[in-house]
Amino acid sequence: MSLNTFGHLFRVTTWGESHGPALGATVDGCPPGVPVDEAALQRWLDLRKPGQNKYTTQRREPDAVRILSGVFEGQTTGTPVQLMIENTDQRSKDYSEIAAKFRPGHADITYFQKYGIRDYRGGGRSSARETAARVAAGGLARAALAELAPNLQITGYMVQMGPRGIDRARFDWDEIARNPFWCPDAEAAEGWADYLDSLRKSGDSVGAVIEVTARGVPAGLGAPIYGKLDTDLAAAMMSINAVKAVEIGEGMAAAMLTGTENADEITMGPDGPVYSSNHAGGILGGISTGQDVVVRFAVKPTSSILTPRKTLTVTGEETEIVTKGRHDPCVGIRAVPVGEAMMACVILDHLLLHRGQIGANRGHIG
Amino acid sequence: MSLNTFGHLFRVTTWGESHGPALGATVDGCPPGVPVDEAALQRWLDLRKPGQNKYTTQRREPDAVRILSGVFEGQTTGTPVQLMIENTDQRSKDYSEIAAKFRPGHADITYFQKYGIRDYRGGGRSSARETAARVAAGGLARAALAELAPNLQITGYMVQMGPRGIDRARFDWDEIARNPFWCPDAEAAEGWADYLDSLRKSGDSVGAVIEVTARGVPAGLGAPIYGKLDTDLAAAMMSINAVKAVEIGEGMAAAMLTGTENADEITMGPDGPVYSSNHAGGILGGISTGQDVVVRFAVKPTSSILTPRKTLTVTGEETEIVTKGRHDPCVGIRAVPVGEAMMACVILDHLLLHRGQIGANRGHIG
Amino acid sequence: MSLNTFGHLFRVTTWGESHGPALGATVDGCPPGVPVDEAALQRWLDLRKPGQNKYTTQRREPDAVRILSGVFEGQTTGTPVQLMIENTDQRSKDYSEIAAKFRPGHADITYFQKYGIRDYRGGGRSSARETAARVAAGGLARAALAELAPNLQITGYMVQMGPRGIDRARFDWDEIARNPFWCPDAEAAEGWADYLDSLRKSGDSVGAVIEVTARGVPAGLGAPIYGKLDTDLAAAMMSINAVKAVEIGEGMAAAMLTGTENADEITMGPDGPVYSSNHAGGILGGISTGQDVVVRFAVKPTSSILTPRKTLTVTGEETEIVTKGRHDPCVGIRAVPVGEAMMACVILDHLLLHRGQIGANRGHIG
Amino acid sequence: MSLNTFGHLFRVTTWGESHGPALGATVDGCPPGVPVDEAALQRWLDLRKPGQNKYTTQRREPDAVRILSGVFEGQTTGTPVQLMIENTDQRSKDYSEIAAKFRPGHADITYFQKYGIRDYRGGGRSSARETAARVAAGGLARAALAELAPNLQITGYMVQMGPRGIDRARFDWDEIARNPFWCPDAEAAEGWADYLDSLRKSGDSVGAVIEVTARGVPAGLGAPIYGKLDTDLAAAMMSINAVKAVEIGEGMAAAMLTGTENADEITMGPDGPVYSSNHAGGILGGISTGQDVVVRFAVKPTSSILTPRKTLTVTGEETEIVTKGRHDPCVGIRAVPVGEAMMACVILDHLLLHRGQIGANRGHIG
Repeated sequence: MSLNTFGHLFRVTTWGESHGPALGATVDGCPPGVPVDEAALQRWLDLRKPGQNKYTTQRREPDAVRILSGVFEGQTTGTPVQLMIENTDQRSKDYSEIAAKFRPGHADITYFQKYGIRDYRGGGRSSARETAARVAAGGLARAALAELAPNLQITGYMVQMGPRGIDRARFDWDEIARNPFWCPDAEAAEGWADYLDSLRKSGDSVGAVIEVTARGVPAGLGAPIYGKLDTDLAAAMMSINAVKAVEIGEGMAAAMLTGTENADEITMGPDGPVYSSNHAGGILGGISTGQDVVVRFAVKPTSSILTPRKTLTVTGEETEIVTKGRHDPCVGIRAVPVGEAMMACVILDHLLLHRGQIGANRGHIG
Repeated sequence: MSLNTFGHLFRVTTWGESHGPALGATVDGCPPGVPVDEAALQRWLDLRKPGQNKYTTQRREPDAVRILSGVFEGQTTGTPVQLMIENTDQRSKDYSEIAAKFRPGHADITYFQKYGIRDYRGGGRSSARETAARVAAGGLARAALAELAPNLQITGYMVQMGPRGIDRARFDWDEIARNPFWCPDAEAAEGWADYLDSLRKSGDSVGAVIEVTARGVPAGLGAPIYGKLDTDLAAAMMSINAVKAVEIGEGMAAAMLTGTENADEITMGPDGPVYSSNHAGGILGGISTGQDVVVRFAVKPTSSILTPRKTLTVTGEETEIVTKGRHDPCVGIRAVPVGEAMMACVILDHLLLHRGQIGANRGHIG
Repeated sequence: MSLNTFGHLFRVTTWGESHGPALGATVDGCPPGVPVDEAALQRWLDLRKPGQNKYTTQRREPDAVRILSGVFEGQTTGTPVQLMIENTDQRSKDYSEIAAKFRPGHADITYFQKYGIRDYRGGGRSSARETAARVAAGGLARAALAELAPNLQITGYMVQMGPRGIDRARFDWDEIARNPFWCPDAEAAEGWADYLDSLRKSGDSVGAVIEVTARGVPAGLGAPIYGKLDTDLAAAMMSINAVKAVEIGEGMAAAMLTGTENADEITMGPDGPVYSSNHAGGILGGISTGQDVVVRFAVKPTSSILTPRKTLTVTGEETEIVTKGRHDPCVGIRAVPVGEAMMACVILDHLLLHRGQIGANRGHIG
Repeated sequence: MSLNTFGHLFRVTTWGESHGPALGATVDGCPPGVPVDEAALQRWLDLRKPGQNKYTTQRREPDAVRILSGVFEGQTTGTPVQLMIENTDQRSKDYSEIAAKFRPGHADITYFQKYGIRDYRGGGRSSARETAARVAAGGLARAALAELAPNLQITGYMVQMGPRGIDRARFDWDEIARNPFWCPDAEAAEGWADYLDSLRKSGDSVGAVIEVTARGVPAGLGAPIYGKLDTDLAAAMMSINAVKAVEIGEGMAAAMLTGTENADEITMGPDGPVYSSNHAGGILGGISTGQDVVVRFAVKPTSSILTPRKTLTVTGEETEIVTKGRHDPCVGIRAVPVGEAMMACVILDHLLLHRGQIGANRGHIG
């Protein structure tokens, strides 16, 4: 069986393969009365789409999203919203030479082992193209959040490419949109450009770390124990292609700290509790504190490289493989809008869950 | 709302607070015909229970598990299994001095903000005592796995305590059960003992990294896209108290690698594909490869420390807090059996999901 | 697999067998801040419990409910509420003679075919004792409804016993609590008493029809298409032991009507739309209209009778069976409080679902 | 919120409105390796589609289904199957005169009260056009069932139109496909034709009862307590537009029977237990017995009639309404293939659930 839905009340089911006629997202549970149209969603897809600069794959898809249901006269109706993106640039022939060989580090071998099906056309359901559907759904989530939590701001950015991290001292929110890497550190971005050029020449690829921050998240979101805000964010990010780790706030480094160092001290501000630091990443006990919610995830390097690697054919013979054709040297770049979309979906979901309770947020402090 | 259930087919709902009459797990979806009794579950609880050595909290609970339903004449019946653990050593008075103050880094402030309820008796539902219920459910999962996947072995161990990591060159599976830290490196364990003694004296605490390895996992488990094996493991581990990060295989370090370095090359062995390395942590595209499944998670230091920290009272006045009473300097130690339990539950769940399909594992290679 | 949970946000998992140590309900999703204690729940269980008069089984269980979690200082906390009822009068020996024979019309044969387990002690999980857990959960739902919808009144009553129906012209709400059959027609109740006496003497049993009416349900509840209010009520009632049919409003008779006859005409009243009739049973398109919600269900006669019937032994030999021991000639009587409990759970669930949306009920008319 | 998904493992989410660009079903959980193509699904849609004879609405939609995902080279892949049907004959203008008035007995008033949205174009999401998506999904379920349970036969038919029922003595399986009413009694069908003609002339409508029988269902299907086979069938049928009641086996009439009459006696046949009768409708304790599974449901008369009825305008003024335009005098006719589709989906779902367990059906008798 497969499980292609996420979310508790804002439920997103993505469907479609990289080389079928279309892919999309069926979104159930979007509240009624949310102003939205195709242009509002397209804006986010355009940020994600490939072929925008020399650092991402040259596959050129317009990735035009159509709303097939659930929106009437510019507003959601409360019924399922069907978001469809047609596949126009399929070029299956590019993939002919890998049709009979498994790619080391790629999902083609496990899909075959699980389903007994070989979709040799370029990843099928396991392709990163599936994330276009998430970005469309995330756009809808953002439209609903604009109504429900107008102060919320969700921003993704890359903080590490291979061995090269950003310098937090140079962090600049405004820089993020100015370079092709969504890098908040202009100097780091320059170094990354050179590094990617050299990788491209050698036909190699590299991993990356993405951070997504949500500012303006109200306190009280999260549904412990197994629908904690961080639990759901961990699942959401880990479900993105090629992700191998997820961190909240201090993340792995929390293991290195003492309790004295890790405690975010609390004082009283004009609008409620104020914290001296944010080791927690805005979440305690699975519930938002009102601080920035900070998530990071690591994206492994793509398995489509020019370096010859040992592998098997579909019939089990040993061989070598080299992956030619259009591919991203750093797929992490395109994961940034996807991480933002997942954050938007998770926060909307928890806002909706939280609204249902008697006296939500009645635990007012001060 | 709260969401206290995890799992797709093997569904575990935990319930109970640290200072109520009892806590437990309602397990729905356990297959019928699994041999199990209370002693089989108690074995796992005894490993987890506090007060076993000087490195864990001195709260002494027998943590005796009772099976109230779903087992008849030593076998599961296919109906819900109710596992109950009574709270016997509640000593609420110990907590009286923290009743009116929030603890920095503790969930008491967010639970209050969410629910408007103040259970001052020691964490209530957010207490790590909830994990006793997980260990009991994990014991049941292990009993079912013993029938369904007899070669499966799940082992948790600590690989880092604060700044001190293990040396992988000294890794010894047999050492894990020999020291109080479930440490596979005897030399590291000695250093940790000294380190914890000094922490205890200063009334401080420290974080840790736990690794859980499942050996003998069949290929083909995982339900992409949103029920991937790694997605579910990430959610399972992140839901454990105090966990701030989850890694699969190479984890965060995957971001540092090139595609050439990260590719686990494949050759043919007598029983199917053999991999030259395991950067993937046994999972590709959310589906198990047949290699060891390797998960790591970081546990932050407990917030109950003797160092005075700034905080608020429940009514919003600024104050300082010092947490006296019995607490663990390194709560990560007790997280080891919990991580094992979550691994057992997730793998069983995916085994059951996988059994439903036509021609499961028919994608035989070679 | 088994599925022992119902509800979307107010999620009730029942557990336990008729002859195990205990049974109960794990209720997740109850809003915080609901005043409730054991006495408030016990009230409903006392109405249901057997052995109260000569018309129900002589099994005498105190059916005392304990709240093991989720309630603190007289209020729900928003965490799971565990409701446990110990089995005290198990008398397994009564069932010894049916241990090796299937009862025609009873679930023992299908449970054996499904699970391969034979719990010969009196029904096990399929016993109507499971409904005690529903009544406890329904009591909790009522406590929450008292906060959320104080004008709501849920009343169940029997409208037919075997071939004898009530006369709607004599319907009297106050009569319902006055006779042992929850019959709103005093004259019919007298006839039923005589009829049951004769059935008891012949060792036979008979079916019944129960109606449950919810008055004061706000308009707008229901989550189309597959969480319609009537869909969820149909599932809830059909899940009760021995139920073979569910009707909403006009029910099966709607098939006999013309569109002209069936239309509930609408005029304007002081508080909104007023309907000339209620063929719809208070539900249109799966959403409540604000009229009374009316559900009926048919309960088949119990299979435990003194008339010899042909059957098989567990090993497949043909034989005859007569069921001695304590049993209800009309199990429908005890289904009345169960039907009420299910109605309470379903309405609360939909109230919680409805609260989450933007501008709930903003479609104000007039 | 809305809930537009049904099924546990074979999960169907329908989407779309009667007058939007398209509608469809997103089917997740279909097993891989099922042979299917668009023609195989179209066959079932053609049976349902309107405008086929003078007894159903004259709206002419080709209702051509497209498979957008999840099928590769004529086989399901195990990933989500997207089934899309474009709306081509929308003619919104027909509905202009009812745009400002609620129709008594129609869902337009409750959708407005719930969502605050007025889709005046002809029912929107509450239109029976939604059932086209179910029929498409049911076609996919049938394709999977052809692999998993080749002896299974699912047949729907009408057993009552208004006051006129069939004569069971004349029941003929072969007759069902020969008349426009799916009526198993040729003589009754003739009477219905005359009756419908007179209804059409008077501009009135009438209700109906549909029965769906599944032959060849293996014993052991059903997931008690809240996923019983009859529970899920009741929900599935009640979710169909205009359905007001669901019966299993004897149904409401079970209330009239004594235990002696209702017991289906059991003897031993060559292939296992044989029952003397089928009052149970093939289900005991929520689990299939191996007998025919028999479900009936009542469809109310459509609210679109020429008889003037009192109602309100959207702004709350009292008025009268007459519904002109194309409508079905007996919508029950078109519900037959929908009932079959729901039966197919439910049985497949339970087959998949059942396959997961250890030793499924090991409770062999004899």
